[in-house]
Amino acid sequence: MEASGSPRPKKVRPTQSAVKVMFIVAYDNDGVILHHVVSPRQTENADYWNIHLITLDKAVAQKYEPTWDSIDARPIPQWYDDAKFGIFIHWGVFAVPSFGSEWFWDFWKDQHKQEYIDFMKENYPPDFTYQDFARDFSAEFFNPEDWADIFQSSGAKYVILTSKHHEGYTLWPSKASFSWNAMDVGPNRDLVGELAAAIRQNTNLKFGLYHSLFEWYNPLYKQDEAANFTTQNFVHQKTMPELYELVENYKPEVIWSDGEQPADADYWTSKEFIAWLYNDSPVKDTVVINDRWGKGTVGVHGGYYTYADRYNPGMLLAHKWENCMTIDKRSWGYRRNAKLSEFLTMDELLQTLAETISCGGNLLMNVGPTKDGMIAPIFEERLRDMGSWLDLNGEAIYYSKPWTSQNDTLTPGVWYTKSGDNTVDSYVYAIVLDWPQSGNLTLGAPHLVQESTVTLLGYTGDLVWETRGNTTVVTFPDKARVSGEWAWVLKMTNVS
Amino acid sequence: MEASGSPRPKKVRPTQSAVKVMFIVAYDNDGVILHHVVSPRQTENADYWNIHLITLDKAVAQKYEPTWDSIDARPIPQWYDDAKFGIFIHWGVFAVPSFGSEWFWDFWKDQHKQEYIDFMKENYPPDFTYQDFARDFSAEFFNPEDWADIFQSSGAKYVILTSKHHEGYTLWPSKASFSWNAMDVGPNRDLVGELAAAIRQNTNLKFGLYHSLFEWYNPLYKQDEAANFTTQNFVHQKTMPELYELVENYKPEVIWSDGEQPADADYWTSKEFIAWLYNDSPVKDTVVINDRWGKGTVGVHGGYYTYADRYNPGMLLAHKWENCMTIDKRSWGYRRNAKLSEFLTMDELLQTLAETISCGGNLLMNVGPTKDGMIAPIFEERLRDMGSWLDLNGEAIYYSKPWTSQNDTLTPGVWYTKSGDNTVDSYVYAIVLDWPQSGNLTLGAPHLVQESTVTLLGYTGDLVWETRGNTTVVTFPDKARVSGEWAWVLKMTNVS
Amino acid sequence: MEASGSPRPKKVRPTQSAVKVMFIVAYDNDGVILHHVVSPRQTENADYWNIHLITLDKAVAQKYEPTWDSIDARPIPQWYDDAKFGIFIHWGVFAVPSFGSEWFWDFWKDQHKQEYIDFMKENYPPDFTYQDFARDFSAEFFNPEDWADIFQSSGAKYVILTSKHHEGYTLWPSKASFSWNAMDVGPNRDLVGELAAAIRQNTNLKFGLYHSLFEWYNPLYKQDEAANFTTQNFVHQKTMPELYELVENYKPEVIWSDGEQPADADYWTSKEFIAWLYNDSPVKDTVVINDRWGKGTVGVHGGYYTYADRYNPGMLLAHKWENCMTIDKRSWGYRRNAKLSEFLTMDELLQTLAETISCGGNLLMNVGPTKDGMIAPIFEERLRDMGSWLDLNGEAIYYSKPWTSQNDTLTPGVWYTKSGDNTVDSYVYAIVLDWPQSGNLTLGAPHLVQESTVTLLGYTGDLVWETRGNTTVVTFPDKARVSGEWAWVLKMTNVS
Amino acid sequence: MEASGSPRPKKVRPTQSAVKVMFIVAYDNDGVILHHVVSPRQTENADYWNIHLITLDKAVAQKYEPTWDSIDARPIPQWYDDAKFGIFIHWGVFAVPSFGSEWFWDFWKDQHKQEYIDFMKENYPPDFTYQDFARDFSAEFFNPEDWADIFQSSGAKYVILTSKHHEGYTLWPSKASFSWNAMDVGPNRDLVGELAAAIRQNTNLKFGLYHSLFEWYNPLYKQDEAANFTTQNFVHQKTMPELYELVENYKPEVIWSDGEQPADADYWTSKEFIAWLYNDSPVKDTVVINDRWGKGTVGVHGGYYTYADRYNPGMLLAHKWENCMTIDKRSWGYRRNAKLSEFLTMDELLQTLAETISCGGNLLMNVGPTKDGMIAPIFEERLRDMGSWLDLNGEAIYYSKPWTSQNDTLTPGVWYTKSGDNTVDSYVYAIVLDWPQSGNLTLGAPHLVQESTVTLLGYTGDLVWETRGNTTVVTFPDKARVSGEWAWVLKMTNVS
Repeated sequence: MEASGSPRPKKVRPTQSAVKVMFIVAYDNDGVILHHVVSPRQTENADYWNIHLITLDKAVAQKYEPTWDSIDARPIPQWYDDAKFGIFIHWGVFAVPSFGSEWFWDFWKDQHKQEYIDFMKENYPPDFTYQDFARDFSAEFFNPEDWADIFQSSGAKYVILTSKHHEGYTLWPSKASFSWNAMDVGPNRDLVGELAAAIRQNTNLKFGLYHSLFEWYNPLYKQDEAANFTTQNFVHQKTMPELYELVENYKPEVIWSDGEQPADADYWTSKEFIAWLYNDSPVKDTVVINDRWGKGTVGVHGGYYTYADRYNPGMLLAHKWENCMTIDKRSWGYRRNAKLSEFLTMDELLQTLAETISCGGNLLMNVGPTKDGMIAPIFEERLRDMGSWLDLNGEAIYYSKPWTSQNDTLTPGVWYTKSGDNTVDSYVYAIVLDWPQSGNLTLGAPHLVQESTVTLLGYTGDLVWETRGNTTVVTFPDKARVSGEWAWVLKMTNVS
Repeated sequence: MEASGSPRPKKVRPTQSAVKVMFIVAYDNDGVILHHVVSPRQTENADYWNIHLITLDKAVAQKYEPTWDSIDARPIPQWYDDAKFGIFIHWGVFAVPSFGSEWFWDFWKDQHKQEYIDFMKENYPPDFTYQDFARDFSAEFFNPEDWADIFQSSGAKYVILTSKHHEGYTLWPSKASFSWNAMDVGPNRDLVGELAAAIRQNTNLKFGLYHSLFEWYNPLYKQDEAANFTTQNFVHQKTMPELYELVENYKPEVIWSDGEQPADADYWTSKEFIAWLYNDSPVKDTVVINDRWGKGTVGVHGGYYTYADRYNPGMLLAHKWENCMTIDKRSWGYRRNAKLSEFLTMDELLQTLAETISCGGNLLMNVGPTKDGMIAPIFEERLRDMGSWLDLNGEAIYYSKPWTSQNDTLTPGVWYTKSGDNTVDSYVYAIVLDWPQSGNLTLGAPHLVQESTVTLLGYTGDLVWETRGNTTVVTFPDKARVSGEWAWVLKMTNVS
Repeated sequence: MEASGSPRPKKVRPTQSAVKVMFIVAYDNDGVILHHVVSPRQTENADYWNIHLITLDKAVAQKYEPTWDSIDARPIPQWYDDAKFGIFIHWGVFAVPSFGSEWFWDFWKDQHKQEYIDFMKENYPPDFTYQDFARDFSAEFFNPEDWADIFQSSGAKYVILTSKHHEGYTLWPSKASFSWNAMDVGPNRDLVGELAAAIRQNTNLKFGLYHSLFEWYNPLYKQDEAANFTTQNFVHQKTMPELYELVENYKPEVIWSDGEQPADADYWTSKEFIAWLYNDSPVKDTVVINDRWGKGTVGVHGGYYTYADRYNPGMLLAHKWENCMTIDKRSWGYRRNAKLSEFLTMDELLQTLAETISCGGNLLMNVGPTKDGMIAPIFEERLRDMGSWLDLNGEAIYYSKPWTSQNDTLTPGVWYTKSGDNTVDSYVYAIVLDWPQSGNLTLGAPHLVQESTVTLLGYTGDLVWETRGNTTVVTFPDKARVSGEWAWVLKMTNVS
Repeated sequence: MEASGSPRPKKVRPTQSAVKVMFIVAYDNDGVILHHVVSPRQTENADYWNIHLITLDKAVAQKYEPTWDSIDARPIPQWYDDAKFGIFIHWGVFAVPSFGSEWFWDFWKDQHKQEYIDFMKENYPPDFTYQDFARDFSAEFFNPEDWADIFQSSGAKYVILTSKHHEGYTLWPSKASFSWNAMDVGPNRDLVGELAAAIRQNTNLKFGLYHSLFEWYNPLYKQDEAANFTTQNFVHQKTMPELYELVENYKPEVIWSDGEQPADADYWTSKEFIAWLYNDSPVKDTVVINDRWGKGTVGVHGGYYTYADRYNPGMLLAHKWENCMTIDKRSWGYRRNAKLSEFLTMDELLQTLAETISCGGNLLMNVGPTKDGMIAPIFEERLRDMGSWLDLNGEAIYYSKPWTSQNDTLTPGVWYTKSGDNTVDSYVYAIVLDWPQSGNLTLGAPHLVQESTVTLLGYTGDLVWETRGNTTVVTFPDKARVSGEWAWVLKMTNVS
């Protein structure tokens, strides 16, 4: 898309007949998106939001340098901040033992955890190796269209697959991982390619890829490590060729890098990769990256921040961040022997969503498919429930911005966002995790004026509210008349 | 069961400290239970019912004859009618392909269903046999204590395991099924024995067994069949020795016979077995059987009636019956590739429960464990949700009797039961599947009098009601103040 | 078998054009064969014998009774004594571990031999059962025509397959062994039927079957055993139905019974079976049995005698006997880890043959096929070498009778037979295991007269001999002019 | 190589007590071995030769250049020419399907041979990959001491193992073949290292390694190939690192390079490798290489010549060469379904040996071990038979030189060698493949003089011979007095 002249706001016509949302997109002189004006026009029958994410090819003259200053100067593409909610998928050979954790190999062989040693002793011959598991990674039920449908229905706007975890096994036929990839042993399929195609053909979700820089037991890596990372054979022969290959073949719009901790970015040649990614790769304009590119980069350099595993800062951050967490509280990979109590409930998931979005983060919610290639029903249920909640309440989430306060100053379990536009008509949303027992909800953070209205998503009609001192008391309606469950969203106008 | 002579009521002291229920049990002169008077004394914190099922050894002089007249004359032990809700477990070699249905073998080899032929073609060598699956029936995660905990938590009062399905593979080390049982090939464990012990040691549930009389491909059976059942080698050498062995070794209190259809009860020697079961077996006083004992016995002879698979008569029956159904709508055995939409929801499950209990049936709800030995989380969730509903609403179910009307004559989705005692103080319960949109529920069946009270289980305080013509209009409270979800129970006194 | 009346010799025309042998068969009035007169007419190019075995339907009025007296009175069919040399085949699930011995299961589980316990520990998961092996009994290379060719080429005249060893697994789809047979698990083929057909279509060998009466771990057997064999469920439900089924379906002409030792013949109902076999079975006229039919029958009752395993009495016996032995000195079943030194050499095999035939026995030489269905090349080599020796020297073996002396009284390693006819022209054969170092062989047993000639099979022309005192000294020719190796046969006329 | 002082013959004392041979080794001024004088002193009981191969550390100043001129100038170490007979071992993942050939993968996937396609179709699921076989490469019976014993007993003086065949799977834990090596998947053992240690500890054989430069399906190779070998990623990242690793870790004294044909030596960097091997590697003084180092090198550059597979030039060559052939005529890798007729006989093997040695070649005889790790008995038998022949006749083979004539000019099946020393007392040996029918052998090539003697190895005493015209007629003794079989060696003195 060529930039020229003055910003030309123009209407974008939805390309799908089912789309119930209109956009006005404003560009600056360079064709950079200034903002979206999103005009949701929910018809009577529309029981869901269908967000149309627009990707623009910018005419970029600028060249990024392989320095953190240059790299960090690039704004995170707008689509990512708008999307808010993504799905993480941990899949790999660890889905075969499917026991304990996707860290099975390391817990067994390096950390010598008794639970894993016992599991192997009780169920396998003594000489069984981790690689011996790979043949049973069957994926016979892997139907990527089904996955696409589930992810779409969850309300997520992007999906990130572990193209290669620390085990080094690649879910695509990597040229640098002969006989240790999903085409050569196990599924005999290009799992990355099939999922990418299905996501793109069937949904409007963005497709991203997780990639581990290091590999626990790759001897090339072990050699570099033993040389204090003064050699880079592993980088040049395995991990970086794979990463370039991934980008060129599958055009991921998120790269979720991991396994960077043992060595610095110079060893990994991360900055060179990112500069190429931003300047010359097929996804240079739309790609989003995280911050795991070398020792000390987490929370400092790269794209959005991830902090440590499962870390949720719990407060507003100046820099875009992502809260990645997993529905199975004990593992990212599928566990055949997981119990119900080990899965997060919808209440817990929505609490996490509210906290994350209010504080400016995106939520990346993980599922671990089975070795057969299924998303187990318990995961499917959580995802579809997320979707049903977002269908009703999504306007408090998608395209939203953090508000002045993140959570309410008086009542616990109330989290705020505001609508994404910068007009005077912007809304403030309060996500209420617990229906008020008394019927009245007292809010300390927002200040309403006479023109203010308060509505409840899923309920027809305005709510009664009044100001009491510095607080606002909102009277909730008969709950039986309100659609939805688990959490509720108040939508307020003219909030100061 | 007719009362005669002077009943001698006596109090039975609960044997567990946690029990929140007192019983008064009336016996006749022969020590036969006339009825229970159940006096629930729900403490403030008690959010569940703990039913204490009492088994008595009767001093029986009577001997049952191997005739239907004699057999059918035996009353069904009271515990069964009181229990109302049981768990069915379909487990066997079919959990290994875990595809399509527990009828996998027959659909593949006899009915030549394309889906099954294709599955085998795509995933197994051409010569692979059904019996070849058995080695992979690993059961490595089978922890019967975990199962017991789940079943207990579901509110079920009995559990029935497929000791042997039509495949002929026995889940115990049957003396008549050498090398085709769970000790010899696959788990290398006595699955029946382990589950029986765990259920008895950890719960107060009754333990029952499903047993298929016929076996699809047993050559002894095929020979008898080819001889028009004029020979009985299969009966004498395989199926009946196993059934006697099961009773003697595991003392099941329910025998859920199946696979009887091809031949009549004379061929199977069913009547002789039942007479022995009632007269001389270790479970003679407490055992309950169903009605599948030979061609033409369903709904006619034996114990409780089952009718055809998944059959729910939808109306009150004079004879005790059981509605067996499965949470996975498409299969009794576990299906690795089942999707969420194929599982019944809590709304559907409670509708089935309400209909069944109102019409005098018991509900037998099926789960299919994995070949690993797990109850998949989606099943565990449904079962624990059932338990949470029954904790609150169980007094409308356990020990209940059908009321005059089964469902309401005006408002759909309302089902009635009454409390199990015959005193004037007995309650009528209305199970309301849908919260009334308007806040008022109009009932056509019950007639209340001035002294009548209407309460809602899970809500403190009486409900307001009024009589309008022949109908009663009950005003529902603010839903936010009512515990529970999915369905609600009105408890009414002085109903005529 | 009593001769009476006037024998009517008649010529039987060979039915195959390749036959190089003429027979004169003498019958008595009842059509019973009195004897064969075998007239070998070896052409110049004939490098093999093609024995035409004749089977006659006798008009038998006699009925055998289920008593040893009656059974033992039946003469062993002539074909068996004429045949001399048979092949034994040990095949079963033990070919899967293929370690140690075909007694693997018992050595492992009952005798707790450390070698077997260690093998399992080092190579299989702890819960692996013997029956779990069966799925890997693949038989994918089993081509019964190839086996028939090898057996035919070995010079053997009959072949005996283990239809069922002590493990209880049947190599045919037994109706009494559901899911523990070669059709149901493993090969998915009727191994007995396929081999029987191939032997009969491609060779003139007789087809026989080994069958174990007892089964180590069959619970029906264990129950009978625990009852001191006062019950017979195992006999009536498993082992005898199978034996009848075998005879009716596959018409074996040898039944090599085994596993009889724990119980007497009354328990096994052996006499009833044999009476049926002799009176009414499809092989009543030609079938040959051994002597293992109950405790105490070995060497006393039944058909030919076998004595204990590998037993070779080493002297002439009045009753027909069979020396069964195995080429692999340490096992009857195939051992994957067998070493060359554990296989008998041709010298050893021919020594055994010579001893056995000289003493009136038959030799049954065992091979153990692989789980793939192959006769390993080392076995094939031994068998074809046997055949090449018999091609040259077979007239000293087939149809032969023991001579006055079995072995020479002066020179060790010389064994005698005589030709099978009773005419004055009969030959005496000396099987010489070691070529005489000096060139002269001194014999103490035969007495030659002037008309006597001495020839050497494989050498053209008469040998020079002379009488020295009571001995005969035969001068051997230049060895380079003699065909054959390993052992040599002198053929003498007019020996007294 | 520095010269110093005068030749210093010195006696080398045998290092093993069992050695029955004394050596006198003569050096020239440069320390180069002029010849061995081998003085066999066969004791009465000695039934084998125990050759003591001497390795010298040379003081090398010379540096080889990475040019063919420089490389080709290096003499082949003497030990190799003296050794004459080696064992080739083809082992790898191909031992798992063990069907058809070690080229299984390529015949199946690239050449689409129907036999292989059918084999897979009939025995494996459709998605089964070649790499999926690797897990079943169990090697549970691999006892390298047993192999060493067999190879030692064969009379071979060196052994060469396929460290990596075209499949790319390495039998040692290669740092460049993560998860596609014998430590990571399958045996979980360092097969190369274990065999090397066992050979060296238990025998006096040299240990060598086969290594394939190219790999059928390695994507790095395929990329280089697609770039017409203008890129060398495969060489730098996989094949050459492995070759250096092999040399450094296992110190092979033969490198049998293969798979060189698609590209020239510049692509492979072969000359650089060889220069390093000759100058700086741990085996620089003793290592022997073959001639497969790039397109066009076979028969032209490198070490000894190999020509094409199974090629035997059949005439004397000026350059040292090796005849590699396999006992199984149809495959180098083990075939489970091989038949006896497909193995070479001892007659054929000795014919090949005689032809090869007479023409100046070494014989490299191949065996294919099973996936279990066994040398099948048929191979063991051939090897031990070779050893028994060489025990008797080895002096015509080891240390021998080609004679003037290679084979006899009159009688077919007679091949000549001469003893390795250059003294006037050297012997001429005639290897006679067929014992003369007439007892007399007429030779056209040697001319004997009066002082000449002719003896027959394995026979005591001189043979009678006479000159008839230009021929010599040797009278053979009574064969019964001659040890040995299959082929015979005449040893002649004073032959001109």
